Amino acid sequence: MDNESFMRAAIELADDGLRGGRGGPFGCVVVRRGEIIGQGSNRVTSTNDPTAHAEVTAIRDACARLQTFQLADCELYTSCEPCPMCLAAIYWARIPAVYYGNTRADAAAIGFDDDFIYRQVALPPEKRAIRMTPLLRDAALHSFQAWADLENKIRY
Amino acid sequence: MDNESFMRAAIELADDGLRGGRGGPFGCVVVRRGEIIGQGSNRVTSTNDPTAHAEVTAIRDACARLQTFQLADCELYTSCEPCPMCLAAIYWARIPAVYYGNTRADAAAIGFDDDFIYRQVALPPEKRAIRMTPLLRDAALHSFQAWADLENKIRY
Repeated sequence: MDNESFMRAAIELADDGLRGGRGGPFGCVVVRRGEIIGQGSNRVTSTNDPTAHAEVTAIRDACARLQTFQLADCELYTSCEPCPMCLAAIYWARIPAVYYGNTRADAAAIGFDDDFIYRQVALPPEKRAIRMTPLLRDAALHSFQAWADLENKIRY
Repeated sequence: MDNESFMRAAIELADDGLRGGRGGPFGCVVVRRGEIIGQGSNRVTSTNDPTAHAEVTAIRDACARLQTFQLADCELYTSCEPCPMCLAAIYWARIPAVYYGNTRADAAAIGFDDDFIYRQVALPPEKRAIRMTPLLRDAALHSFQAWADLENKIRY
């Protein structure tokens, strides 16, 4: 399969999810060495999980199948430019390459908040629409110090 | 319980998760009407799930318990300033208020990529360390149009 075939598979997942009433019109596949090893469509409303976007679902699927928490040898194909949640998930999973169909502007045009959230994430915490309040940093730093001191920890 | 008690509960989850070897030193609780209705600690390395940050885990826990995909009447307490993935998840869940302990700079100081990912998310797609390539937008737009045309859809 070539790049366009993988993108068509992601789009087909978006269409299937929409027809099945599982959530928004988004689909995604994770590919390793020319093979789809993870896939997903948006399942937010059908599973009561606001984090169940297509990319998060596909990454979790790929990681479960490969028994790993990093996908550095994979590529991700998504029917729409990832929202900030999914983009950051892609960074945490160490996926080095992403192909996307629709843009965040296309998503905004049909009522999704991706572009708004991109602009919010770029603001300092005190400027956001969400009220963000620092609290007990000194106490919280103790668990960070415990991590720093830990030998043989598994980094990610 | 007051604000500080909820933050101490989040920090205790961070410490427990660290001691139990479940993942990084991060804990989170979701509170509604003065009661903890969701909680989590980082479980990335123990469950092979790069999206299993404390906040994502706590949001999923709260939504499963309340059988909803939106938490507009809740507050979130996290032992560290949310990374972009978790912050965007908080927006998608419609949580209006967040309390946090450590900062993203504190997280960077013990080896976590939060600050790097914040700076990456703010860049245009073509400027990022991850290679991002548009592909087949015209084909992908068809599923967006199908969503736009759908009556009685569940928005989120």
